[in-house]
This record gives sequence, structure tokens and C-alpha cells, in this order.
Amino acid sequence: MATIKDIAKLCGVSEGTVDRAINDRAGINPETKKRIMEVVEQVNYKPDRIAQSLAKGKTRTLGLIFFDLNNDFIAALVDTIETIAKEKGYFISLVLTHGIKEEEIKGINYLLERKVDGIIVFPVGKQSDYQELKINIPVISIYNKISDEIPYVGVDAQSAMRDAIGYIADCQYERVILVNSSITKKVKSGLNVYTLQERQKGYIEGIEKNKINEGEGSLIVEGLDFRRMDALYRQGQGKKTAFLCICDVFALEVLTHFREQAIRVPEDVGIMGFDNMSIRKYVSPQLTTLGYHMTEMAQKIFAYLMDMIHGSDIPKDTSFPCQIIEGNSL
Amino acid sequence: MATIKDIAKLCGVSEGTVDRAINDRAGINPETKKRIMEVVEQVNYKPDRIAQSLAKGKTRTLGLIFFDLNNDFIAALVDTIETIAKEKGYFISLVLTHGIKEEEIKGINYLLERKVDGIIVFPVGKQSDYQELKINIPVISIYNKISDEIPYVGVDAQSAMRDAIGYIADCQYERVILVNSSITKKVKSGLNVYTLQERQKGYIEGIEKNKINEGEGSLIVEGLDFRRMDALYRQGQGKKTAFLCICDVFALEVLTHFREQAIRVPEDVGIMGFDNMSIRKYVSPQLTTLGYHMTEMAQKIFAYLMDMIHGSDIPKDTSFPCQIIEGNSL
Repeated sequence: MATIKDIAKLCGVSEGTVDRAINDRAGINPETKKRIMEVVEQVNYKPDRIAQSLAKGKTRTLGLIFFDLNNDFIAALVDTIETIAKEKGYFISLVLTHGIKEEEIKGINYLLERKVDGIIVFPVGKQSDYQELKINIPVISIYNKISDEIPYVGVDAQSAMRDAIGYIADCQYERVILVNSSITKKVKSGLNVYTLQERQKGYIEGIEKNKINEGEGSLIVEGLDFRRMDALYRQGQGKKTAFLCICDVFALEVLTHFREQAIRVPEDVGIMGFDNMSIRKYVSPQLTTLGYHMTEMAQKIFAYLMDMIHGSDIPKDTSFPCQIIEGNSL
Repeated sequence: MATIKDIAKLCGVSEGTVDRAINDRAGINPETKKRIMEVVEQVNYKPDRIAQSLAKGKTRTLGLIFFDLNNDFIAALVDTIETIAKEKGYFISLVLTHGIKEEEIKGINYLLERKVDGIIVFPVGKQSDYQELKINIPVISIYNKISDEIPYVGVDAQSAMRDAIGYIADCQYERVILVNSSITKKVKSGLNVYTLQERQKGYIEGIEKNKINEGEGSLIVEGLDFRRMDALYRQGQGKKTAFLCICDVFALEVLTHFREQAIRVPEDVGIMGFDNMSIRKYVSPQLTTLGYHMTEMAQKIFAYLMDMIHGSDIPKDTSFPCQIIEGNSL
């Protein structure tokens, strides 16, 4: 492969002049520049970006760490961040943890070794894990907060869930069962459950505020435990019951479960999700859910990371408000 | 940050000995190694992988180039490849083209500059585009074939579509309308339409073989042109009609379109997709579609790329067979 030295020789100029042409710097005659760029094209010269990044300390690469791409909402967020980043000349290194802390630590170490300019992480790990990592580049955590030091961008899940209960109560439901992820198991395993906990807090507040589940208190299912869902549903003895699910994927699973038993939604049971997945429009009855402006959120996350990379301070805690997206499942 | 030199000084050994310990090479006393590794941990030493990759010419990074992540089938494929790759110590650089050729070219140049060890691409570009790129690392194209030189892994779309028409004919349909992507427009723009063309060829063969669309010939809609779909549907004057869609996303859009007009699926019109997206199970009626073993395909793509990276030859053309996945939309 041709080097700057070769090109300089071919053009009869100094290496510095070639460098000026290639990197679009001042102090070069336009005619000379044109001639050099023609040779650059002819010899198919590619600047050695790895060597360059060693010298400049910037790789124009961002690390993205997510659980997985099976949730179409998360896939769309990754897609949007990649698109925004590329417009600004940044490329993406993608790490998926599948919710496993060791994979996250390995991934962060890889990204640090690769000298990415910044990291956006939907973390499984907690403050103690991150303290051990000694990260020396900008990091933004999304959905799950890590610590007061690492900036966080998420959604106002607690008040969203509280409002959702109010909305469900307005639809004349007397009971609301929360279908959360397996939060107790995750806490025991030392995983970061920040957003799950926020959502659950909002549920409990909403239940109390709206006098739902009278005499029963909080009714929480952890994970897609259909047997427990059925038992809690029957326990209501005909009282109007809704399942409020921690995410749309869970809501669709619960919807399918009741449909298979010929229990009608919303006539016999109500269902509500969280995320506003794009596929909810294909499902009948259309899912009622909680949504927020994902593109705006992606833009904010990217802009904040750029600010941090350029040495500016950003707010430590940014939460996007959620709205109720009406469907026909309540 | 600590260097090998610092560690050597701290341990009172040579830099070569530290290098032996860190890179797990022979010729070092186990006690010494243990002592060195403790210091390595203490000073939080991170090997400089960019400098290393410059020296070794291997970055253990793979480039992935896809259209986007909006199709949950593609998102799942990216997820699966990332998981398999990471198990083998490879990380992923992700580039999304959104079907724009210039983005693909930019992306490939970035990946070449980054010295990724290999590239997996669902290409928008054609042979002529790739000849100009002068790629000097292993590349596998998926779904769209680029040339006889660049190995291709895809699905046997042509015979799958032919078989689908046979299946639809067995369900007593007299007419089958193909809903393709906007293939004519894409051909005019010089884009790679290999898999779209294969699917269309299979449709035309199936129509002829099964004596479908008598007197009407091929009935093809390009893109989600609902007005044309309605016109073609009415043109059948009560003859049993099905829409065979190029992908599940299109099939779900067509399903939603007819549902909104109170035209019942499958009583009034049949619909079939292609991809076997995971979300089809949430839709009622469940979509009949064409599927193939995605995990197996991802494993094969990765294994082939590893073979190429290690200098072995691989087959130039690998196609996975498709199966009809029965639903209730026909």
C-alpha cells in the first residue's frame, strides 16, 4: 500500500505538503493540492487511521453497550444513535451484554483498549462495578443510573407508572397487577435494577393514591409467571382487573396468553405496556402503552456525549417525560 | 497510565519478562508471573491494543454492514452474530446504510482504515462499486450477491417463492399478487436488488407452474402502494385472492390495511409473508410465512469468515433452504 512518502516522491513535493493536502489544512497552493489528490486517488492511498488515532488520541468511534436487540424499541434506539453519530463522522462499536455483568465489564475494557472517544451504556453493572473499572473517557448511562458521578439520561418512569394507574382507574378498573421483570432475583445477583425499581415505585404510589386493589395491596408478578398471573386474576372474583406490564414485550406475551385461553382483552381483562414499540400497531386489540420521544432522547444522548468529549459539563440527571398512548387493550 | 516499562521497574524484571507474563507466553517462572500479574492489576495496566494491532495486523474486530435495525429479523441476526463473535473474542463495528450506496462505501472505507479483520455485508452496492473499493480483507456478502469472487451466503429465495405459490394454490386461491419492494426504482438507481429479483423470479415461475392468475399473468405491486393493491384486489371480482409479500414487515402493513377497511383475513383475502419475524406470533390472525434457520445461518457466516481470515477457501455460494411456516392468514 502507498505511503505519504511515496506520494510525496511521485508529486515531487515534501511529505508535509502531502499531509496538508490530505488533511485539508491551510498553507498549500490549490493547484498543488489538486495534483496531489489526483495521485492519492490513483494509488488508492488510505490514511492509516489506527496510526493517526495513536498520534491524535481520537478514534472518532463511540462504544454502545446494550442488553440485546430483541426488543424492537432498543433496536430502533441503536439505529437512531448510529445514524446521528455517522452524520457527525462517528462510527459505532457495538457490545451486547444479554444482561450478563461479566460481558459488560469485558465490553468496557475492550472499548477502553480500543480508545473509543466515549461510551453510551444501558448498564447491568452498579456503582461498585464501575468504580473498579477506572474509566477515563466520557460515559453516559441510559435507563439505569450508575452513580451520581456518571451522567444519566432516562425516562421519568416513576411518575409515568403512577399516572398510568390513574388512567387505568379512570377506565373503571378496580384491580391492577404489575408484571415486572424478575427484580428480586436480579437484586440478589447484584445487577442494576434502577429502572425496574423506579417503575415499581410508581406502581405502588399509584395503587395507594387511586385506592386500587382494595384489601389486596400491591399485586406484583416477577417475570412471565403465567400461573401466578392466572391465580391473581381468578382471585379478583369478577372485579375488573388490568395487568400493567413493565414493557411492551411482556404486555404482548400476556395478551397472547389470555387470548389462548379465550379470555377477551379488554372485555374480560385489561392490559397496558411501556415503551410504545412500533409493532404495537399490528396487534389487535392495539396495545395501550406509555411512550416517549425516542429520537429526541437519542439526539440528547449524542449531544451530551459530544459535550463531554469536548470537555464541557452536562447535567447529571436528565429524564424524559412519558405520555399515555391510547389503544384498545383497556 | 502505567506502561510495561513502569511495571518492569516496579517488579525488578526486564520488559521482555513483563511481556511474557501479560501475553501468556512461555519462558517465565510461574512465581515471577504471579508477582507481575498482581502488579499489573494494582496499577490498572491496560495493554495498548491499538499499538498492538499495528504491530500484529489483527484487530479482532469484525465489520457488520446492514441496511437498518427496523426489521426485527435483521436485528436478531445482528444480535446473534455479535454473540457468536464475542464468544470467539471478536468485537463488532456496526455500520447501517439505510439502503444508501454512498453510506455503504463510506462505511467500508472506515472499516478498512480501522483494519477490521473481516466484513459481513448485506450490500446495497454492486460488483462495479466493489471493484472500485479494492478491498484487501475477507468479505462475505449476505442476501444480496455482489460477484462470483466475493463469497455469498443467503437463502434459496427463488425456490421458496415458487413453493409458496404451490402452497397458496393448494389453499384454493385462484389469484396471487406479489407485493415486492420498489425494485424498478432501485434498479434505475444502480442498487443491488439480487434477493428481490430472486424472489420475483420464483413468484413468476410459481404462477406459471400452478396456473394461477388465469388470463392476468404476473400481478406485481412495487412498494406499499395500497391504491394499486385495492385496484388489483377488486379486479379479481370475487375470485379467491392472496397477497404474497416480499417480507413480513410488508405483510403486516397489508394485513393492517385490509383490516382497516373491514376486509377480513383470511375469509376475504389471504396474506403471506417472508422472514418468520418473531413478532408474527403476537398478530392475529397469525401470519403464514417463509422461514429459515437464522441461528444456523449466523453460525455459518461467522465460521466462513473465520476460515477466510485464516487463509482457507470457502464455497462461493451458500444458500439456506426455506420452509413454509403455517399461520392463519391464508
